[in-house]
Amino acid sequence: MADDNFYMKQALMEAEKAAARGEVPVGAVVVCRDRIIARTHNLTETLNDVTAHAEMQAITAAANALGGKYLTDCTLYVTVEPCVMCAGAIAWAQTGRLVFGAEDEKRGYQRFAPQALHPKTEVVKGLMADECAALMKDFFKKRR
Amino acid sequence: MADDNFYMKQALMEAEKAAARGEVPVGAVVVCRDRIIARTHNLTETLNDVTAHAEMQAITAAANALGGKYLTDCTLYVTVEPCVMCAGAIAWAQTGRLVFGAEDEKRGYQRFAPQALHPKTEVVKGLMADECAALMKDFFKKRR
Repeated sequence: MADDNFYMKQALMEAEKAAARGEVPVGAVVVCRDRIIARTHNLTETLNDVTAHAEMQAITAAANALGGKYLTDCTLYVTVEPCVMCAGAIAWAQTGRLVFGAEDEKRGYQRFAPQALHPKTEVVKGLMADECAALMKDFFKKRR
Repeated sequence: MADDNFYMKQALMEAEKAAARGEVPVGAVVVCRDRIIARTHNLTETLNDVTAHAEMQAITAAANALGGKYLTDCTLYVTVEPCVMCAGAIAWAQTGRLVFGAEDEKRGYQRFAPQALHPKTEVVKGLMADECAALMKDFFKKRR
């Protein structure tokens, strides 16, 4: 049985794919009963769509894989703290568990909408936060 | 030149389409320089996707029509107050103007994330609120 670190590493690999195509490096995976049912990365530039965050795509893809729109038995791993939009989507999906890496003080949901998540969603913060944050810092450093 | 009421009526027609297919009746249109560039309605049941709110689709469709992901010169008309997810998306899109009908005290962004919108987005609340709310009330009454 894989653990949280294993799945977060998968999300990090997705984030690296995003960076390689010039996208802000955020990656996500959705796990249901020890199986990855969705793996996604930020595609806002490629798709020319502000809604194409890793988490949004992960929720859509996971629901598609499950054939039902609720993710109550799933864990969503994401390398960076979700924004308000994504937190709202994570709530609508009644996601069972959310594990995120680096905090996002500027755009994260905790600042703007601390009550946005579903009350039943278990939240684990800061898993492999340094690795997740390093990818972001490196990306923005190169862009300057 | 059409006015806000005209465009909200178009959004209401979209909401009616949603109701007709058993979807929670919320409709949206995006207007750019007096032209409707997107018209959408809630499709969460049909698409089996919690992210398929009218506003989310409207933002994606409008960006596609414009060929750019920011809606700074656009007005988004939506029959019901956006939820947290949609407010976040409206902010990312830097939407110039938001006009909504009925307030949503239970799920609306004003309750959970009053600062979620972009500071430059002009907001008009309560346009044709009675008509917009009546559609919702009627829908949920029939469902009970």
